[in-house]
Amino acid sequence: MRTIKLIVAYDGTDYKGWQIQNNDPTIQGEIEERLGIILNQPTRITGSGRTDAGVHALNQVVHFRTGSQLDLRSLQKGLNSLLPSDIVVKEVTKADADFHARFNAKSRIYKYLLWNGKTLSPFYRRFSWHVHHQLDRDGMRDAAQCLMGWHDFASFQGTGSVCRTSEREVMRFTLTGRPGGWLVITIEASAFLRHMVRNIVGTLLEVGKGFMSVNEFQTILDAKDRGKAGITAPPQGLFLKEVRY
Amino acid sequence: MRTIKLIVAYDGTDYKGWQIQNNDPTIQGEIEERLGIILNQPTRITGSGRTDAGVHALNQVVHFRTGSQLDLRSLQKGLNSLLPSDIVVKEVTKADADFHARFNAKSRIYKYLLWNGKTLSPFYRRFSWHVHHQLDRDGMRDAAQCLMGWHDFASFQGTGSVCRTSEREVMRFTLTGRPGGWLVITIEASAFLRHMVRNIVGTLLEVGKGFMSVNEFQTILDAKDRGKAGITAPPQGLFLKEVRY
Repeated sequence: MRTIKLIVAYDGTDYKGWQIQNNDPTIQGEIEERLGIILNQPTRITGSGRTDAGVHALNQVVHFRTGSQLDLRSLQKGLNSLLPSDIVVKEVTKADADFHARFNAKSRIYKYLLWNGKTLSPFYRRFSWHVHHQLDRDGMRDAAQCLMGWHDFASFQGTGSVCRTSEREVMRFTLTGRPGGWLVITIEASAFLRHMVRNIVGTLLEVGKGFMSVNEFQTILDAKDRGKAGITAPPQGLFLKEVRY
Repeated sequence: MRTIKLIVAYDGTDYKGWQIQNNDPTIQGEIEERLGIILNQPTRITGSGRTDAGVHALNQVVHFRTGSQLDLRSLQKGLNSLLPSDIVVKEVTKADADFHARFNAKSRIYKYLLWNGKTLSPFYRRFSWHVHHQLDRDGMRDAAQCLMGWHDFASFQGTGSVCRTSEREVMRFTLTGRPGGWLVITIEASAFLRHMVRNIVGTLLEVGKGFMSVNEFQTILDAKDRGKAGITAPPQGLFLKEVRY
């Protein structure tokens, strides 16, 4: 048996998220279907984490174990020729026998793209959240400081989450302006709760618009109560950027 | 009567081009339908030129004449709220009474995006042509020099074209590399023949791949015979960037 590692990019717009489901198209489902054809046997794959419906990935990390001796280049070419064009296998490598894409991950990095231009863009609509309102970037950065380190992020956890604990470590938060009205939020954490990034971004926007103070943001984190936080930012701005091992 | 000028951006992926047709969705058709609702009367619009099925525009220029006194801000907001999200009206202004988006245009600038990275990108597939082959950029630039100035571009004219003459003036050609494997071709000309940019790009690619010499490219231009040129580059890489008056 070999353990194979894939790096996969996808445009999540037309999928019901990463995790396989019975009737709806999912990234995992699409990949497993093609892998089964190429390896000539049903093959279960494991991703570093589940992305929600409509969320994208630049470098989702995936592993599976197989007895097949097919060379890795043929495997990659075969997958990419069979997969729909919104899912691309960027790399195929042999991993250590006990490599586990999810349990070995030390941290995940997500990016959220905010398009802060005057009018909607027909080109960015699939890949960003258009926010017309002028935003107080410094206020957003100040508020986000309280996220750094180990905290109970229950206030930013989506309903229906099944994690044993809502404690996570945030190692990095940056908010960067880019030419043409772009704002890029980058968050690295040990792991993320369901909807955590989108709930943080939605609540930070309230600070950015001046509807919430930095102190109120801190109070929400401390409350450990989802009912206190702001709206969930829409999925199309969110990208799984990188998984660190 | 007022003459109103619109600047429109669109993702052309899901349309059969600019020009209105009976049964298929077109950009002109979508805009005229919403304009008719807002102005409460059928209103014909004129674009600076027709873009083909699947071709995009960053700044298509459009005019129409109307007796309506609706203020321009309401007109823009109304159009953008009724139009599908892949068509955006970026600007609405009052133009000179005799302004004509097509006949007054002095030149058009098109961009063609080539994605020259190793693997396909799920994010750029709607907006670029993926060319895996290593390209000789200097060769492509050298070959394109012969396009500059007034020429009969019959060799690069698509079939079914109804122009009286195939003489056009090319004022600018640039090929620029951008970080991450991008090549951007920019062409400015007095006007363009049907498929002209895409036929030029498709033929230049032959030079870039080393399958055609600079002299052979020149010979094709001189032949004034469409049968001599290379393939037509696919539409999704092409953007109408700007119209100059």
